[in-house]
Amino acid sequence: MVVTAEIEAARQQLPPAVVRTPLLPCPALLEGTPAFLKAENLQVTGSYKARAAYTVLASLGREARRRGAALASSGNFAAAFAFMGRLLGIPTAVVMMRKTAAYKVERARGLGAEVVFCADRWEAREELLARLEADRGLTVIHHYEDPRVIAGHGTIGLEIVDDCPDVALVLVPVSSGGLLAGVAAAVKGRRPGARVVGVQPKGADAMARSLEAGRVVSIPEARTMCDALIATSPGELPFRHAQRDVEAVVRVSEAEIAAAVRFLATEAKLVVEPGGAVATAALLSGRVRPGPNPTVALVSGGNIAPERLAALLVGGAVSD
Amino acid sequence: MVVTAEIEAARQQLPPAVVRTPLLPCPALLEGTPAFLKAENLQVTGSYKARAAYTVLASLGREARRRGAALASSGNFAAAFAFMGRLLGIPTAVVMMRKTAAYKVERARGLGAEVVFCADRWEAREELLARLEADRGLTVIHHYEDPRVIAGHGTIGLEIVDDCPDVALVLVPVSSGGLLAGVAAAVKGRRPGARVVGVQPKGADAMARSLEAGRVVSIPEARTMCDALIATSPGELPFRHAQRDVEAVVRVSEAEIAAAVRFLATEAKLVVEPGGAVATAALLSGRVRPGPNPTVALVSGGNIAPERLAALLVGGAVSD
Repeated sequence: MVVTAEIEAARQQLPPAVVRTPLLPCPALLEGTPAFLKAENLQVTGSYKARAAYTVLASLGREARRRGAALASSGNFAAAFAFMGRLLGIPTAVVMMRKTAAYKVERARGLGAEVVFCADRWEAREELLARLEADRGLTVIHHYEDPRVIAGHGTIGLEIVDDCPDVALVLVPVSSGGLLAGVAAAVKGRRPGARVVGVQPKGADAMARSLEAGRVVSIPEARTMCDALIATSPGELPFRHAQRDVEAVVRVSEAEIAAAVRFLATEAKLVVEPGGAVATAALLSGRVRPGPNPTVALVSGGNIAPERLAALLVGGAVSD
Repeated sequence: MVVTAEIEAARQQLPPAVVRTPLLPCPALLEGTPAFLKAENLQVTGSYKARAAYTVLASLGREARRRGAALASSGNFAAAFAFMGRLLGIPTAVVMMRKTAAYKVERARGLGAEVVFCADRWEAREELLARLEADRGLTVIHHYEDPRVIAGHGTIGLEIVDDCPDVALVLVPVSSGGLLAGVAAAVKGRRPGARVVGVQPKGADAMARSLEAGRVVSIPEARTMCDALIATSPGELPFRHAQRDVEAVVRVSEAEIAAAVRFLATEAKLVVEPGGAVATAALLSGRVRPGPNPTVALVSGGNIAPERLAALLVGGAVSD
């Protein structure tokens, strides 16, 4: 399990390229509760993944750096990995499913990653990574089981508590659970009385189901517009963190997510991708009703194709 | 002329509702120059006007507060004035031209201002304000000649220098010039070697023409999609500040402004209205080429109707 000292150490090492993102007041979000957005969409490469990408790449030894590193990603980790690989002079390869949004493929390529496609199954990513390791000697990062990655994500939790010392509730988007694990470890480590709640799309709720079952379970497929939240099972390590530190993982509908993307653009003036908006959606929809004390919704990423954002802004019907 | 001490005093008085907006790194904006965005679109009410609205309303005496205050606005000052009026318990009325975007009218009303319409001429605003003063005893704020307003705007300049002590160049959107005057007074007061440059749409360039003429001149009408930058002449007081403190006012085209709105959404993940994007447009288009030292583009507001933003995102042709 990742402890606060490891997260503190990860924070000490972050380079100037990693943005100390603002905790923005958002009075329109909740009535009677001070509400804040931790705006990791304003992070370099457009998502929170930049932090952990640096943490894990900077931990590699000289020979591993020379040969390069690989991971599987739905897009945001790929862009962050590419950016930090270039910063550190480490070649990077990212495994993406063929169904990955073209927008996210191009972002990763544009930042210098080699993109290697696999079949549209969650497990196919691991199979291809194993081949890259065996054939080319790349160091494979299994990012949802890697404590360095969780420590990197956790630096967000430290910043939240620094900027809002009396925070009572933090809501976090969840896919395989690494972000939730890191933020919860940091927040609970610093402020044990605060509550941490995860949020998943209804159609991609493997962590919620796993916590309910008391063990890691899989869903057959992820059905959601949130292309960053498509894990069909949580990681084992994030799951154990969630069991220890997280009060609940709640579900939001696709219509609620679309409304949150619109709200964030019109009221908070932030461009947020659907997966980055689920924590906001849980508050805006009333699915989570905080008490009178400060509440933070983590906005995890803003990598959305302009056409997709335009369609959500004009409010076409979104079916659940 | 407004001096740094007045701006410092205005900053001391700002209430917690005014956001200390972030200075966001934007590596994609310039090659070889550290570039930053001062994100006043993230200010409460969605524009920088919240600061000066507070400064001026908080300066009113007891009787003036009871009777209420009025100003003319193209929209952003109206929303900020309404918000701060409610915070301070002061009734507010705003004079708007009939052509004002419905989106901005509704925002001001939603925040509690009384909206009074006038004809679509710049001077008609002053005529109606004079009537409101005579008939109803409202205190009229002539915001582009009011040193308190310029001091309130100037607090942005202090924050820029605090966050980036080696700033070499600051670009500022310009309409009647109050924002430019305040920011320039603060930046030059703190860092005399820094350069301050104003930016106007080609079709609404009264300040640029005035500086070239060496006196305040008017243009017949403002022709631009920037509904926040429609002054047909600069204020006298802002003009004198600009003569003293500003290196130049440059012009950008409508197509360059549209490209900047798209860039800010896709690369910086910020929702910015056209008028808020002109300083970014001046850099992105190469109309201003900074040296190797830190450069700041002021992003002044994000109040754009969702349909309008959607249209700009999908990149319909914009004619100049």
